[in-house]
Amino acid sequence: MKRSSKVAENDSSRAAASRRWLVWLNWPVGAFRLDAKSLAVFKARVMRTGDSLTVVRNERAFLKSLPEATHAVVWEFKKEWFALAPALKVLATPGAGRELLPTDAELPPGVIRVNGAFHGKIMAETVLAFVFAHARGLYAAEAFQRRGVLWARAEMSPFCSLVAGTHAVILGYGKIGHEIGWRLEALGVKVTGIRRRNFADLKSACRTADWLIMALPSDTGTDDLVDASVLRCLPRRAVLINVGRGNSVDETALARALRARKLAAAYLDVFKDEPLDASSPLAGDVPNLHRMPHASAFAPEYMPLFFVELGELS
Amino acid sequence: MKRSSKVAENDSSRAAASRRWLVWLNWPVGAFRLDAKSLAVFKARVMRTGDSLTVVRNERAFLKSLPEATHAVVWEFKKEWFALAPALKVLATPGAGRELLPTDAELPPGVIRVNGAFHGKIMAETVLAFVFAHARGLYAAEAFQRRGVLWARAEMSPFCSLVAGTHAVILGYGKIGHEIGWRLEALGVKVTGIRRRNFADLKSACRTADWLIMALPSDTGTDDLVDASVLRCLPRRAVLINVGRGNSVDETALARALRARKLAAAYLDVFKDEPLDASSPLAGDVPNLHRMPHASAFAPEYMPLFFVELGELS
Repeated sequence: MKRSSKVAENDSSRAAASRRWLVWLNWPVGAFRLDAKSLAVFKARVMRTGDSLTVVRNERAFLKSLPEATHAVVWEFKKEWFALAPALKVLATPGAGRELLPTDAELPPGVIRVNGAFHGKIMAETVLAFVFAHARGLYAAEAFQRRGVLWARAEMSPFCSLVAGTHAVILGYGKIGHEIGWRLEALGVKVTGIRRRNFADLKSACRTADWLIMALPSDTGTDDLVDASVLRCLPRRAVLINVGRGNSVDETALARALRARKLAAAYLDVFKDEPLDASSPLAGDVPNLHRMPHASAFAPEYMPLFFVELGELS
Repeated sequence: MKRSSKVAENDSSRAAASRRWLVWLNWPVGAFRLDAKSLAVFKARVMRTGDSLTVVRNERAFLKSLPEATHAVVWEFKKEWFALAPALKVLATPGAGRELLPTDAELPPGVIRVNGAFHGKIMAETVLAFVFAHARGLYAAEAFQRRGVLWARAEMSPFCSLVAGTHAVILGYGKIGHEIGWRLEALGVKVTGIRRRNFADLKSACRTADWLIMALPSDTGTDDLVDASVLRCLPRRAVLINVGRGNSVDETALARALRARKLAAAYLDVFKDEPLDASSPLAGDVPNLHRMPHASAFAPEYMPLFFVELGELS
């Protein structure tokens, strides 16, 4: 990157407060891995002159370097590790969920936690995929093809409808919910966002919903928030989409509603127990249930988007 | 509809020029049928005080009423029928294609043809469905589920990418192409529209395309416009989508490109010969080919959207 001499001066004055980055971002999911391209984005967008960078690949190496680090970028951090990190100022994670890091209350004085907030840009596209694939009959078209009906033109009409003009209720209307919301609104959908302070409005909003889209975190008293009594409020044409956390759906009630055709379909990326196994009420052959393996934020752009954000914040 | 007395006066002055509507809109496709709800929209949005309406259900009844009609609304009209229609002023059709109606050159003096132009609002949603379902891995997720892999989290990464930031080439950039284009642009996609006057730019645009989206009519010298030489310009990651007409794709070349994995996928709503049958090079088991039975404009809103438009035009 070309820099003017003025910027270079600023950089050298900043160097006094240079940061020692310690990055440990191994993860079994390919889309969430720190590859060479992402690392180049980190260097270009996060690091300033004078900063140092240590990239480690396991817990042992991480803990060995932790005493020197001022900035740690991790998937996971145990609260007892703070005792090993006297210089730490920033604990940053690309994760959207907060399960793997200490809570705010557990942070020592002088340490701030930075959670990635870019996930909605990816997850909103997954929600659009579910909404449009459902409304435009893509699953039905595939099913006809698989059954050997090459030209199911007369059969397709009941599976096709317009998204514009429908009503989406978005349960969990923080950063992720808003990323979903503005896209749907731009495409002509009426959006009702439900935040924690108006959870009480959920049932009445559901009565006119075509889509109930869930983007809730797991740490806010959301267990079974969508239960049989909420599902009963949805019209039969309605579709449930969950890209938040699985704890917020009563899975037995959902399976029952789908089997009784009280809902048109459910598109679930998350489940109460992950990895999903055969013991789940949502594991078997439930009609109109479509499962994804907690992949709504998968994209090669995952780490680059996080590092661009981190560069703006830090 | 409530009307003020001023409007009522206008209406009675218009009554002198009252129109005799003859509507024949039977069609084997449910989504394109004139049902009671659509007819109510016709009466509310198209008809004015003094207008008369005759709805017929077959050719014989249509031809019997044709001599009186000033406005005919049809799927199909043979040019020899003009001799039976001395009062005809407007020949309107909901169809986007022009195959079933006389050409402009065949219209008698004083008769205008009105083609529905609302289709893009529905078809663009089908294109969004293809684009987002492909990019967000929905087809891959379904395939893993069908193969009994309940939690294919480690396997899903290669099938998931971000739509924002990609490049779409839209071949055929009239009303339908624009409806596709603005939606994709709103969602962060770079769009290159190719109209007939710049067909020569197609190949160079394809070299950076993630999506080649075809929305061409069949009557403009478009046969095999996308042939082997155009397909060769597309990157391997690219996806072909056709919601226009099937004549514009060299189907043998496309099947070959898909089998050789020169393209990531094709989503086709239209084919050279419809209904598609086993003799087509695109009928068999071609990898990453997804077929729809010419249904990209299917929606219960089809006729209502047409009548709203017709009410504004006439």
